[in-house]
Amino acid sequence: MTTTTNTTRNGVDTATLFGTLDAIKANPDLARFQFRVANRWVDGPHNRSRIKEFYGAGAEDTTRTEAFELVAGEPQVLLGTDTGPNPAEILLHALAGCLTTSLVYVAAARGVRLTEVTSTLEGNMDLRGALGISDEPRNGFEDIRVKFVIKGDATAGELEALLDRARSRSAVFDMVSNGVPIEMDVAVT
Amino acid sequence: MTTTTNTTRNGVDTATLFGTLDAIKANPDLARFQFRVANRWVDGPHNRSRIKEFYGAGAEDTTRTEAFELVAGEPQVLLGTDTGPNPAEILLHALAGCLTTSLVYVAAARGVRLTEVTSTLEGNMDLRGALGISDEPRNGFEDIRVKFVIKGDATAGELEALLDRARSRSAVFDMVSNGVPIEMDVAVT
Repeated sequence: MTTTTNTTRNGVDTATLFGTLDAIKANPDLARFQFRVANRWVDGPHNRSRIKEFYGAGAEDTTRTEAFELVAGEPQVLLGTDTGPNPAEILLHALAGCLTTSLVYVAAARGVRLTEVTSTLEGNMDLRGALGISDEPRNGFEDIRVKFVIKGDATAGELEALLDRARSRSAVFDMVSNGVPIEMDVAVT
Repeated sequence: MTTTTNTTRNGVDTATLFGTLDAIKANPDLARFQFRVANRWVDGPHNRSRIKEFYGAGAEDTTRTEAFELVAGEPQVLLGTDTGPNPAEILLHALAGCLTTSLVYVAAARGVRLTEVTSTLEGNMDLRGALGISDEPRNGFEDIRVKFVIKGDATAGELEALLDRARSRSAVFDMVSNGVPIEMDVAVT
């Protein structure tokens, strides 16, 4: 008789998760990642990013077989034709996605089975900044409000603690909360 | 004999652009926008955002006819199955998209015809932060490097000045450089 242990929880293979953590603890260089995007302008506010290659776990990735193509656009009132969500909306998607994945991974590691995770995000902006009409409002969102609904097999306190932990470890929450140094180069011809 | 003036430059209707700026100068309330995203967890690091409704120019938008659906995922080495780009890559797309659109709008306003705008972005991350292994590295990118190639009918100095202006007015550049206050709520059941 053989016993099979299913280590997958919330769609996360926890044996691989704990193995990954152990491998990085033993060799911190494996934690070095570089993510990359190549963007090309199409027309007006329509542009497109290609996302495929990255470096991580000590090597250039060879597992991602196809590139992702993401578009950006603007709605009519902002002079576009809705070729895609606008960049500020895309930033909200990045934030929602990172908080949700962090939450799901923390829950898997803690043995909590989740049944539903949804979130709504709102960002408020005074466009006089980005349009160059006034120096008083900032260019970006003044604030972002995030509301999560989390359901799962755990107490309310345990579910709330998952989100606290996710927030304290989310890469995009950190970047959007605290900012990142950005270095810009340009070649003109 | 009638003379038709084509006011479109770089895919941007400059007559509408200048009209929009004048309208906002006359009534700053028109500059108040709220953008929104609704995200739902699918499985593991796979989640999905719906993007449609927004408030701006004094009213709820009625022109966007269909919702955009954006996905997030993780590659194999980060316990996913590549259902989509990961949230950190999506943030780079938001940054590329916003800088590019800002550049194109500034060029249109200044009468510069662009022929090509491409950019590559790299973000470096020590994953020990986001994985909760160490408190020393931050969770997000330590730095982001952006390289633009810009071609158009203007001098090198004029093209460089377009990017300087775009950077100084881009909503996402501001947010990712300087950070935004984020308020979080959770309902658990």
